[in-house]
Amino acid sequence: MQPTTRQEVLKRLSYIEGHLAGIRRMIDEDKYCVDILKQTYAVRRAIEKMEMLLLDGHLHTCVVEGVRDGRDEQVIGELLELYELANR
Amino acid sequence: MQPTTRQEVLKRLSYIEGHLAGIRRMIDEDKYCVDILKQTYAVRRAIEKMEMLLLDGHLHTCVVEGVRDGRDEQVIGELLELYELANR
Amino acid sequence: MQPTTRQEVLKRLSYIEGHLAGIRRMIDEDKYCVDILKQTYAVRRAIEKMEMLLLDGHLHTCVVEGVRDGRDEQVIGELLELYELANR
Amino acid sequence: MQPTTRQEVLKRLSYIEGHLAGIRRMIDEDKYCVDILKQTYAVRRAIEKMEMLLLDGHLHTCVVEGVRDGRDEQVIGELLELYELANR
Repeated sequence: MQPTTRQEVLKRLSYIEGHLAGIRRMIDEDKYCVDILKQTYAVRRAIEKMEMLLLDGHLHTCVVEGVRDGRDEQVIGELLELYELANR
Repeated sequence: MQPTTRQEVLKRLSYIEGHLAGIRRMIDEDKYCVDILKQTYAVRRAIEKMEMLLLDGHLHTCVVEGVRDGRDEQVIGELLELYELANR
Repeated sequence: MQPTTRQEVLKRLSYIEGHLAGIRRMIDEDKYCVDILKQTYAVRRAIEKMEMLLLDGHLHTCVVEGVRDGRDEQVIGELLELYELANR
Repeated sequence: MQPTTRQEVLKRLSYIEGHLAGIRRMIDEDKYCVDILKQTYAVRRAIEKMEMLLLDGHLHTCVVEGVRDGRDEQVIGELLELYELANR
C-alpha cells in the first residue's frame, strides 16, 4: 500500500473505532434501539468509504502491474471475488 | 461485449423478465405481501448475478485493453464509480 | 393489499419492466458495459423503492392486525426474515 | 433493551472491535489489500448480525407496545426509516 493511502486508511479506521465506542456507550446508557441502529448503519457506511480507499489503491498498484505482467486472470479473478463478497 | 457474454446476459435478462411477470401475477391475485417481497429480493439477486457477468466481460476486455494502452486512470475511475454505485 | 397500494405498486412495476426493456436494447445495440451496469443498478434501486411500498402496506395492515390479535411472534418472525433476506 | 439482548449485543460488539483491531494489524504489517478487504466485508456482516439482534429486541418490545398503545404510525414510520437507511 502507498504510504499516503495507508495513512488515510488508518485515519478512517480510527474514526470507525471511535464511532463503535460511541455505540457501546449508547448501549450502556440504554439509549433507544432505533437511534443505536442508525449509528450502526453509519458505521457500515464509514467502512464502505474505507473500502473505497483500499480498492482505489489496489487498482492503481497491484491490478495495473498484474495486467502489465500478463497476470490478467489472477487480478481479474480477485476483483470479481471481491465484488461478489461486497454484494455478499 | 463478447458474443458468448451477450448471449448469457440476454438469457439471464429473459429470466428476470419472467420473474417480474410472476410478481405481477402475485399482486393481481392479491398474494401475501411477505411472499411477494421474497420474490422481489430474488429478482434483485438475479440482477446482481447478471451484473457479475457484465463486469467479468468488462474486466477481460475494456479494462485490460485500457491498462495496456496507458488509459489506467480512465478505466480505474470507471470501476470505482461502479463500485460506489453498486453499494449505492 | 389496499387498492391504492396495489395501484402504486403496479405503476412502479411497469416502470421497472420498461427500464429492463431499455437495458435489453442497450445490450442489443452493444452499448458500453459501464453504461449498462449503471442502468442495472438503477433498476435495483427502483425495485427497492417498490419494496418500501409493499412493506409500508404490510406494516399498516397485517402487522398491526397480527399484534392486536396476539400473533406477535408470527409477524415479528416474518419481518426479521425479510430484513435478513433484504440484506441477504 | 432486555438484559439478555444487551448482553448478547455487547458480546458481538466486542467481537467486532477485536476484528477491527486485527484489520489494523494487517494494515500495519502491509498485508495484501485483497485480504484486508475480505476482512472489512466480514466486519460489515458481523455488524449486520448485531443489527438483527437489536431489531429483534426492538420489535418484541417497543413495536408491540406501540401498536397496543395505538401509536402505530410512530413505530411503523421508524421501521420504514430504518429499512430505507439499511438499504441506504
